[in-house]
Amino acid sequence: MTTTNKPSLEVCLSPALLHLYDVKNSIVVIIDVLRATSTICTALYNGATKVIPVATVEECVNIGRAIDGITAGERDGKVAEGLVHGNSPFEYPREFIENKTLVLTTTNGTKLLHMAKDAIQIVTGSFPNISAVCDYLISQGQNVILGCAAWKDRVNMEDTLFAGAVVSRIREHFDVNCDSATAAETLYNTTKGDIYTYMKQASHYKRLAKYGLEKDITYCLTPDGANVLPIFRNGELVPF
Amino acid sequence: MTTTNKPSLEVCLSPALLHLYDVKNSIVVIIDVLRATSTICTALYNGATKVIPVATVEECVNIGRAIDGITAGERDGKVAEGLVHGNSPFEYPREFIENKTLVLTTTNGTKLLHMAKDAIQIVTGSFPNISAVCDYLISQGQNVILGCAAWKDRVNMEDTLFAGAVVSRIREHFDVNCDSATAAETLYNTTKGDIYTYMKQASHYKRLAKYGLEKDITYCLTPDGANVLPIFRNGELVPF
Repeated sequence: MTTTNKPSLEVCLSPALLHLYDVKNSIVVIIDVLRATSTICTALYNGATKVIPVATVEECVNIGRAIDGITAGERDGKVAEGLVHGNSPFEYPREFIENKTLVLTTTNGTKLLHMAKDAIQIVTGSFPNISAVCDYLISQGQNVILGCAAWKDRVNMEDTLFAGAVVSRIREHFDVNCDSATAAETLYNTTKGDIYTYMKQASHYKRLAKYGLEKDITYCLTPDGANVLPIFRNGELVPF
Repeated sequence: MTTTNKPSLEVCLSPALLHLYDVKNSIVVIIDVLRATSTICTALYNGATKVIPVATVEECVNIGRAIDGITAGERDGKVAEGLVHGNSPFEYPREFIENKTLVLTTTNGTKLLHMAKDAIQIVTGSFPNISAVCDYLISQGQNVILGCAAWKDRVNMEDTLFAGAVVSRIREHFDVNCDSATAAETLYNTTKGDIYTYMKQASHYKRLAKYGLEKDITYCLTPDGANVLPIFRNGELVPF
């Protein structure tokens, strides 16, 4: 179906659909807007040496101990037992995180990252680093899959909107023949004027707002607050 | 998360996500707008006794022979070898299909239908019977899953738009706490003023337009041209 020589740009709305995509010939952007990938770029932007994403609390504790890292992660909206910090980007200001390693366990984002391990390259994306992500994708000239971490495999609003924002910014450089990409772009363009209000309908907004995290949500929906590109190398996310 | 006593209304964008939904406590609407579910309601509207959906060409041939039915189905845009008719709703006017049984094989829709077999009830939906679908769903007062047949498990535009159209019409009767439903509704409301033009970006539009089927596509995107409700009973779709 390709009608140009441009690389392809596709959106995968859930990890449960990733097997339908040609991961190994693509750059994969891991998207977990609320809040893992927003927190990852924030920690690196504020001077963290690296972020090590892990799947379980146990791994997080063990690695954190072995390398003297900051262990972080939540389960059901609370800091997980055995860990010291949570998922909020506001927990990682420069005065705290500079020159440290963050060992972060998140359910949805980490799972997708490991599923995408055969990709040409893996980077993480969120509104706080959207410009860095777009600049990188344009510069590489490779096929791109925008991979939404979703919520327990259910399609979610915030990751879809971010994917749509990226499509909207970079589509002219790519061949877009993916209905998920077109739908996400239209959704973003329709709602961008008041994305925060629109997000109040989202299931994850309701989940987080219960814990009083509106400030996190606003930050996580605002472009370029931590404009650095986390890139996955040897099991670690480092600034590109 | 339920905040009312209304039944839930959810959208499942791909058969590969159906396991995430509580199928057995819901009515499932099978949506395969281009063109299976549009053709099914058209055949019944024009007087077909029933439509038997089958997964393979072989089953289609065997059942068609056993019951003296009309065998129909396409593979790669052509009538499949061994079958007599195709997927176009225009092949089934009253003078041809009245009092006959249509045995139809379609890849995406039939697969989803069999996956949803434990549902409270299965019906099929498409723009030509959207009012019948909405009236039925409101009248039943049960949880609803709008199940998009998609394209080889890839999320597609036309099924998503139809799901959004249904959400838009009936949401006040339901509790909608599903980001796919909210996104589909926004997408539909944004594009409904010129849905045919918007659909020209869709991958399946390009696929069908290659075969010169713009007339089919226009019909399949137009509300209430064949406003009857196909309901699944004992392996057959009959008018409700």
